[in-house]
Amino acid sequence: MKLGVIGLGRMGGNISLRLMKHGHECVVFDNSDKAVDGIVSQGAAKSNGLEDMVRQLPSRKVVWVMLPAGRITEETVQALGGMLQRGDIIIDGGNTMYRDDIRRARALREKGIMYVDVGTSGGVWGLQRGYCMMIGGEDAAVKYIDPILSALAPGEGTIDKTPHRERRDPRAEQGYLHCGPAGAGHFVKMVHNGIEYGIMQAYAEGFDILKNKNSHELAEDERFALEMGDIAEVWRRGSVISSWLLDLTAQALAADETLEKFSGDVSDSGEGRWTIDAAVEEAVPAPVLAASLFARFRSRERHTYGEKMLSAMRLGFGGHVETQA
Amino acid sequence: MKLGVIGLGRMGGNISLRLMKHGHECVVFDNSDKAVDGIVSQGAAKSNGLEDMVRQLPSRKVVWVMLPAGRITEETVQALGGMLQRGDIIIDGGNTMYRDDIRRARALREKGIMYVDVGTSGGVWGLQRGYCMMIGGEDAAVKYIDPILSALAPGEGTIDKTPHRERRDPRAEQGYLHCGPAGAGHFVKMVHNGIEYGIMQAYAEGFDILKNKNSHELAEDERFALEMGDIAEVWRRGSVISSWLLDLTAQALAADETLEKFSGDVSDSGEGRWTIDAAVEEAVPAPVLAASLFARFRSRERHTYGEKMLSAMRLGFGGHVETQA
Amino acid sequence: MKLGVIGLGRMGGNISLRLMKHGHECVVFDNSDKAVDGIVSQGAAKSNGLEDMVRQLPSRKVVWVMLPAGRITEETVQALGGMLQRGDIIIDGGNTMYRDDIRRARALREKGIMYVDVGTSGGVWGLQRGYCMMIGGEDAAVKYIDPILSALAPGEGTIDKTPHRERRDPRAEQGYLHCGPAGAGHFVKMVHNGIEYGIMQAYAEGFDILKNKNSHELAEDERFALEMGDIAEVWRRGSVISSWLLDLTAQALAADETLEKFSGDVSDSGEGRWTIDAAVEEAVPAPVLAASLFARFRSRERHTYGEKMLSAMRLGFGGHVETQA
Amino acid sequence: MKLGVIGLGRMGGNISLRLMKHGHECVVFDNSDKAVDGIVSQGAAKSNGLEDMVRQLPSRKVVWVMLPAGRITEETVQALGGMLQRGDIIIDGGNTMYRDDIRRARALREKGIMYVDVGTSGGVWGLQRGYCMMIGGEDAAVKYIDPILSALAPGEGTIDKTPHRERRDPRAEQGYLHCGPAGAGHFVKMVHNGIEYGIMQAYAEGFDILKNKNSHELAEDERFALEMGDIAEVWRRGSVISSWLLDLTAQALAADETLEKFSGDVSDSGEGRWTIDAAVEEAVPAPVLAASLFARFRSRERHTYGEKMLSAMRLGFGGHVETQA
Repeated sequence: MKLGVIGLGRMGGNISLRLMKHGHECVVFDNSDKAVDGIVSQGAAKSNGLEDMVRQLPSRKVVWVMLPAGRITEETVQALGGMLQRGDIIIDGGNTMYRDDIRRARALREKGIMYVDVGTSGGVWGLQRGYCMMIGGEDAAVKYIDPILSALAPGEGTIDKTPHRERRDPRAEQGYLHCGPAGAGHFVKMVHNGIEYGIMQAYAEGFDILKNKNSHELAEDERFALEMGDIAEVWRRGSVISSWLLDLTAQALAADETLEKFSGDVSDSGEGRWTIDAAVEEAVPAPVLAASLFARFRSRERHTYGEKMLSAMRLGFGGHVETQA
Repeated sequence: MKLGVIGLGRMGGNISLRLMKHGHECVVFDNSDKAVDGIVSQGAAKSNGLEDMVRQLPSRKVVWVMLPAGRITEETVQALGGMLQRGDIIIDGGNTMYRDDIRRARALREKGIMYVDVGTSGGVWGLQRGYCMMIGGEDAAVKYIDPILSALAPGEGTIDKTPHRERRDPRAEQGYLHCGPAGAGHFVKMVHNGIEYGIMQAYAEGFDILKNKNSHELAEDERFALEMGDIAEVWRRGSVISSWLLDLTAQALAADETLEKFSGDVSDSGEGRWTIDAAVEEAVPAPVLAASLFARFRSRERHTYGEKMLSAMRLGFGGHVETQA
Repeated sequence: MKLGVIGLGRMGGNISLRLMKHGHECVVFDNSDKAVDGIVSQGAAKSNGLEDMVRQLPSRKVVWVMLPAGRITEETVQALGGMLQRGDIIIDGGNTMYRDDIRRARALREKGIMYVDVGTSGGVWGLQRGYCMMIGGEDAAVKYIDPILSALAPGEGTIDKTPHRERRDPRAEQGYLHCGPAGAGHFVKMVHNGIEYGIMQAYAEGFDILKNKNSHELAEDERFALEMGDIAEVWRRGSVISSWLLDLTAQALAADETLEKFSGDVSDSGEGRWTIDAAVEEAVPAPVLAASLFARFRSRERHTYGEKMLSAMRLGFGGHVETQA
Repeated sequence: MKLGVIGLGRMGGNISLRLMKHGHECVVFDNSDKAVDGIVSQGAAKSNGLEDMVRQLPSRKVVWVMLPAGRITEETVQALGGMLQRGDIIIDGGNTMYRDDIRRARALREKGIMYVDVGTSGGVWGLQRGYCMMIGGEDAAVKYIDPILSALAPGEGTIDKTPHRERRDPRAEQGYLHCGPAGAGHFVKMVHNGIEYGIMQAYAEGFDILKNKNSHELAEDERFALEMGDIAEVWRRGSVISSWLLDLTAQALAADETLEKFSGDVSDSGEGRWTIDAAVEEAVPAPVLAASLFARFRSRERHTYGEKMLSAMRLGFGGHVETQA
């Protein structure tokens, strides 16, 4: 299939490469000429902008938008909506808020343009490992782009089959799933990221407890000399908590157990936040996912105003001095 | 009543003064001569050590120990146990772990010495406002020291009576309560402090949300210019969240709304920690009390090892760079 | 001042009564004739609907809307917007989402109508104790309705003055505060309720730990026989955690320490939820406020789907049987 | 190697079988004759009690104790301590609190008996998949029992090698690790279980949010019809949150997506609790691990006393009725 790809960052660039490796043709665009040239040098067709890209695509045009969620994606989808025709398909493979998908799909449907939202997991490893994709949109559109999706997906690989799935959607075992109408794909991806924060924080807290058990502030007979890297490694084999995130952790610790090159100022993206909003809207208790998000917020501050207020109260009632030197 | 008071810090000093104001006689001791001289100059009898203090007390000796919880309190109680006689009373007014009370009471009971644990709340305001006391020990001992307790307690004051308390223990309305056998007083005080952490953190988070609503990082039409001090003040009058801690907060904010003289490195004491241990032992969910304690732990770190691990994982799967400059 | 009051539930009815007690005249309306008759019998003027009410009001009309947040308040404000004139004032005293205030104020301003949002705390006690009010809107409007606000507010009462407030807004000490432009009042009230949840949950967890220390599942020498009502009472006097919510708790426990008449299915309202949304938007860590909200969500379920999933995993890896009998 | 195995439950039975499959000889004992006969029928030697077992073992006796943590393990280790000789080795493969290990090792060392604690992960799958083992004890003892450990461990299998581990302990890649002196093995296993709770809860909350997005309480255009089983399956392939626990979840959901056969009353064991105690002792913030434990506590209650107290307060200040029908 010949399709357009807009946005050639870490994700969009690798997606183009994986598609071409599987025999698809990509007409690409990015604001950075350097990014474009990099992919063109590996076989993609160059375009000088959205209109040029659309012109180069064959009838029943398909465009994959792979841009940061927010204004730039919105504007790009709007612009494409003005250039494309009935039956054409816009795919948003970024991290868009699912309500934006619902709104866009409704607006584009009036022109007969189909909109597909694809939550794409896999990070920088996707080129090699394949991308796990969670998809929302109309059946007809999702079926039409199946060759693209199956090319990007990891496939069954060496992962064991889950028993009792005989009558279920076989695409799930290939690593891509049509989750429902527009928005459903990004909703599932959003929750995926919420869970990701929770799992990451669970490991982080556990290793913090292990690491601090080595602390010289502890009495000698209370202190161990635990090796973080070896512990991560041993847990990869046969333990209940083996996972891909643990594999990555083991790699980082093998390279440098101190982790001292990392700032520890941890970013969060929209999806972790929207997951909490969704939990609140649905009245679902989500203490772990919320605590994980808050830990990231806190990591980026030297001190919160609230903490200074705690110090102020402690001075007030107990005469405890926690003032600046 | 003539009694001994050991430990003349912020709490012990004021307790002696309040007792003397109510007509009791205090024989005092502290390792700091300056602390001793301060109280002696206001009417207390000086002693040169535990033995000297005990010698100065009349029969059925009563000693109030008001020292930091831990080794020094333990050693002092042990030493007094070797000097006192059947029927004498040792009071631990500090923040001892309640299991230590149970153990000590059992050991002292063999010699006929009575042990009373008094959880004492009120901080630096107690001298003027009176102390709220939570008491554990044998009936006979608690009754015997009632003149001390009623002198230290706030009394009914101007606080409204709670309806339907006619048949209940009248001491509670005076601000002191015999909670049960040895350990019960400190157990109740421990939970008091656990709740205190939770309430403080609730205010801290709320004011953080208010304060950040003024942030210039917000779009102009999303931003307010809220006055923290005025808000604390207005909530003191007729709101559901009026409290003594809010009164103190309003005072701190009236003095300096920026709170910038405070470090925000917030200490915690044994009681907040033991409250969580008790919740875990009893299988009681205590997410708010635990989160409050963890917020203090976190406030004292620049970054946790766990946060660096989150950065390391994010680099691992997504190529996100959160490394030190 | 003669003003209209729409909505005569627990809050609106008492507000009318308190206003009349202070010499104001109320023209009232409610869908329930019974509610109307109750207030009219105490001196209010009856109206047969919004138009009738507006007709009865003198020039520079003022209408206080005291309805449940959401559709009914929205429709009522819309309708009033169509009936009122330049210079008239609509007050929303309910629990509206602050962004709705901003939107409404902007729309009404085009017609010259002023909109004031008043977050009103005090519950069923407000009639007697006065209402704590957090106010958003234009200066001119807030000044114009000052006689109403000062009548509803608690006033200084017997509460101690906060030092260093000489140059600050004197209304805060009366129990009402002009927090900023439209929306600011409800924003501050929203955070007030978020804090309220946190404080309530802190007490709830603490008493849970106390109560379970009496459990017969504990070994005899680990068990106490603590009296919840007496403990709540003693903490009202001189302790660090004395508060109005504790006063109410002491009353409930004095009436029946078992609390067995209460379901424990705890409701939450929009404000607790929006507080978490605000924290997430501002990137402010709010673990205690979030945990308090989640505890309410959880209280209303027999079991979550998530808990069944935990049981399923435990069966999967460990053969642990947590299946239905 | 010929060794004794005490305790033939889910873990001890399979451990014996795996050892025999690798050529070791097991002399087994269990209070249940049926359990003994089952293993004996597959080649183990029977014993009629501890003394008999010890008698059957060759010099430098090795006994693996695989019993529930607590009194029975304690008594068994004590009894063995009275029967064994200098140089013999007792292995505790259960879930003992690490401080008990330290104490026992110290006491046994006086007699020259070596004590090894082995935290054993892998559950019912260990027979086939191998056990991940975290080991504490003296070097000499751990080396001596290496043939046992390497037989039980999963080995490298098909799991990718972690780069940069050339100079590190090669046993970690086989799935077993000598973590430090006595207690270190169970300490690491304890934290492993704490992390396990956190990861499980992260998935549980995420699926709860997905599941409730299908709820008929939502407006139709807010509702999806997400398939839990397909989502779990697709996440196994190429997503950031693929893990062994997710594999098990996918299996459970493929069998029955409603999970209705599960009670949702979720047990917890000592290790999850001790992890929180350790975090508190070390002053490490562990909000996610604590929230996970509390979710289990809460899952086993119909209502907490605290929740009834929230209802009582809400009646008190707002007239909100949450009383039993």
